[in-house]
Amino acid sequence: MDNHIEIHYCNQCRWLLRSAWMAQELLTTFEDEITELTLRPGTGGVFEVTVNGRPVWSRREAGRFPEITELKQRVRDEIAPEKGLGHSDKKKE
Amino acid sequence: MDNHIEIHYCNQCRWLLRSAWMAQELLTTFEDEITELTLRPGTGGVFEVTVNGRPVWSRREAGRFPEITELKQRVRDEIAPEKGLGHSDKKKE
Repeated sequence: MDNHIEIHYCNQCRWLLRSAWMAQELLTTFEDEITELTLRPGTGGVFEVTVNGRPVWSRREAGRFPEITELKQRVRDEIAPEKGLGHSDKKKE
Repeated sequence: MDNHIEIHYCNQCRWLLRSAWMAQELLTTFEDEITELTLRPGTGGVFEVTVNGRPVWSRREAGRFPEITELKQRVRDEIAPEKGLGHSDKKKE
């Protein structure tokens, strides 16, 4: 069980802070599942999260940033599909 | 110029927060030099920082955490030896 997460973020856009925050949220929630999490600065408005090389979020495709709950759901689906996320699993109506 | 930094931290010791803070400091100071920075949770009191696989800090060897200024100096020496660090370069007397 070797899970590598990468957050590729636009540095010019000053997205380090939100990326580092999301990194901490993921490393806390999936402390038993994540082997390593890489922050990778980029350019041109990039914001992409991959799990073991598979994209789970692209700001370009989605047109927005993920809410932290939906990001956790997508990461969970990849690395720990049986794991409950507590109130993060509840859908907003 | 491909520079990979890794921070290997003890998760049980709850050192994620300081590691994530140091990650942000390094990614901000060396925004043009760092290709990627990896946070890797570990156990047993580990706190090690490597630059391109070379250790620049080991809490076990040093007996303490680095001050952020000395961590930046060591990273600088590896990836951007000509770079000035402003007041981080001044030694405390």
